[in-house]
Amino acid sequence: MANNRQILVKELPEGQLEERHFEMREVPIPTPGSGEVLTRVIYLSLDPANRAWMRGATYRAPVSAGQVMAGFTMAQVVESRDPSLEPGDIVECDGGWQEYAVHPAKVLGRLERRGPLSHHLSVLGGTGLTAYFGLLEVGRPREGETVLVSAAAGATGNVAGQIARIQGCRTVGLAGSEAKCAWLTDELGFDAAINYKTDELRQALKEHCPDGIDVYFDNTGGKILEAALFRMNLRGRVVCSGVVSQYDTATPAPGPRGVPGLIVTKRLRMEGFIVSDFFRQRAEATDQLASWIADGRLVVREDILEGLESAPRGLIGLLRGENIGKRMVRVTPEPE
Amino acid sequence: MANNRQILVKELPEGQLEERHFEMREVPIPTPGSGEVLTRVIYLSLDPANRAWMRGATYRAPVSAGQVMAGFTMAQVVESRDPSLEPGDIVECDGGWQEYAVHPAKVLGRLERRGPLSHHLSVLGGTGLTAYFGLLEVGRPREGETVLVSAAAGATGNVAGQIARIQGCRTVGLAGSEAKCAWLTDELGFDAAINYKTDELRQALKEHCPDGIDVYFDNTGGKILEAALFRMNLRGRVVCSGVVSQYDTATPAPGPRGVPGLIVTKRLRMEGFIVSDFFRQRAEATDQLASWIADGRLVVREDILEGLESAPRGLIGLLRGENIGKRMVRVTPEPE
Repeated sequence: MANNRQILVKELPEGQLEERHFEMREVPIPTPGSGEVLTRVIYLSLDPANRAWMRGATYRAPVSAGQVMAGFTMAQVVESRDPSLEPGDIVECDGGWQEYAVHPAKVLGRLERRGPLSHHLSVLGGTGLTAYFGLLEVGRPREGETVLVSAAAGATGNVAGQIARIQGCRTVGLAGSEAKCAWLTDELGFDAAINYKTDELRQALKEHCPDGIDVYFDNTGGKILEAALFRMNLRGRVVCSGVVSQYDTATPAPGPRGVPGLIVTKRLRMEGFIVSDFFRQRAEATDQLASWIADGRLVVREDILEGLESAPRGLIGLLRGENIGKRMVRVTPEPE
Repeated sequence: MANNRQILVKELPEGQLEERHFEMREVPIPTPGSGEVLTRVIYLSLDPANRAWMRGATYRAPVSAGQVMAGFTMAQVVESRDPSLEPGDIVECDGGWQEYAVHPAKVLGRLERRGPLSHHLSVLGGTGLTAYFGLLEVGRPREGETVLVSAAAGATGNVAGQIARIQGCRTVGLAGSEAKCAWLTDELGFDAAINYKTDELRQALKEHCPDGIDVYFDNTGGKILEAALFRMNLRGRVVCSGVVSQYDTATPAPGPRGVPGLIVTKRLRMEGFIVSDFFRQRAEATDQLASWIADGRLVVREDILEGLESAPRGLIGLLRGENIGKRMVRVTPEPE
């Protein structure tokens, strides 16, 4: 067997993340102890939250210099010293940026596969479920309401918008390029898309949300959140899903004006969540998403980079908004 | 009969409200038409929201220059041209800053009186019900949780804190003087009080909320909200009840840092409301509050100014935090 290639955090970034903050090393492949399994990573998920983990404690322990960079993975069991798993089983785990990892078997769940494995990191995985639960359980849109989504061409945003459209809502997306905006309206069926880099935001929201905004699915925070708050309707809901505008900077923006004034006068609800809060309903959600994919109502778009070594520039590019759809790294070819 | 004395908004304030923004005039007492009643104001409520109405549209139409200043009142029917009300009946109405007003009978409700009439503008009125519904229906504290209240010596805040204490919560108040802080801990049974004008806020919150904050009942917004957000626990709730720090200024503070970052990572819920959203449960709430007053668990504190002419300086002083408890104006002596 070859060595295990790993990518470490060499130094935590102060400002924007760069490739020099990472370094590759090779170490021997670890050996599982009793109750443990050795897994080989197939797909490594790249998510804006990876950068947030480098800033300090969030919903998980922070990432520190000298550690293997953290990341969610889809992996295959290579060697098992626990009766619950067998070689060849596919598992989801916090495997990190490396080719092989040892985990206690009890923290791993065997994946019940539906179609391509990559879907379990995209629409059927954390980002798709974040969109599903965030929109339906936190935002609770009703048919005919207007739903605005930021980072709408991103992994979570595009699914949130598509679900809003399926619910019969007027669906408006914010994205950072004309190509992304065209994809949202032409391929995904959004009612409108706004290029937040070139359009005058307040004016564009007025034009494309003529009846105001009932649910704002916020992946960005910052100026976009501020503009959306001024356009929210009475009893509107702001789903606080992520703050991608603030992760990769040394100088976070001030909070949005209108907080809490507009929250009071419009009786808004702003609510944060993470997907695992809803995992009791996971099977039902996965069934629903898979059925929308099967009948063509939910388009799956993945942006798959090849090889572990592409992870650093893949994450950096993700934070700069270069992806359309769910970005991940194929570390090992998908098994038959 | 004498004339009707009225206080008009002479000019809308740009910055801080001053007495010169108001003027008194006398006009003939109006005559009710068919289906209308003439009422004489007994108590006029003074509320921070009065100042917000001078800034633009909120949950009600804005107040304009040249109009009688708007205000909530408790009044007695003097003459009725509608079968539903009789002279002597006590009604609640948006009577404004004047001695007499004519209203359509159908917008008035006859008050079901419980004890002193003034209680129906304080603990049993809008501010007490705001505290009740905001804390219990929006904040939903559980026994043993920590509840922080800002403007805690104010009309709404003191009741919110007392209800939190009755629910078995650790109750911490923020107020702007040592006298107010002493009143909160010594008379109302708050577990701790913080003088936000002299104490270092972050440090004081750490000290007095050693287990973090589960529910923050926010009457102020601004820097206090910002500091509270950093001390909130996972799944904490911020009840957005008012923004008194921002009403009487030409230069609103920027939004609080930590929005939406902390909302996401701590899965917070920030929610605005107004009391009338909950009026279907009003009778039940009033019963509960009256029973807490009767058995001595809920202390009523009122700050009653005498005479319509005291309204301008009464509101200005309220905005500067000089009141303890619910401030109102006695326009006419309370009937026997």
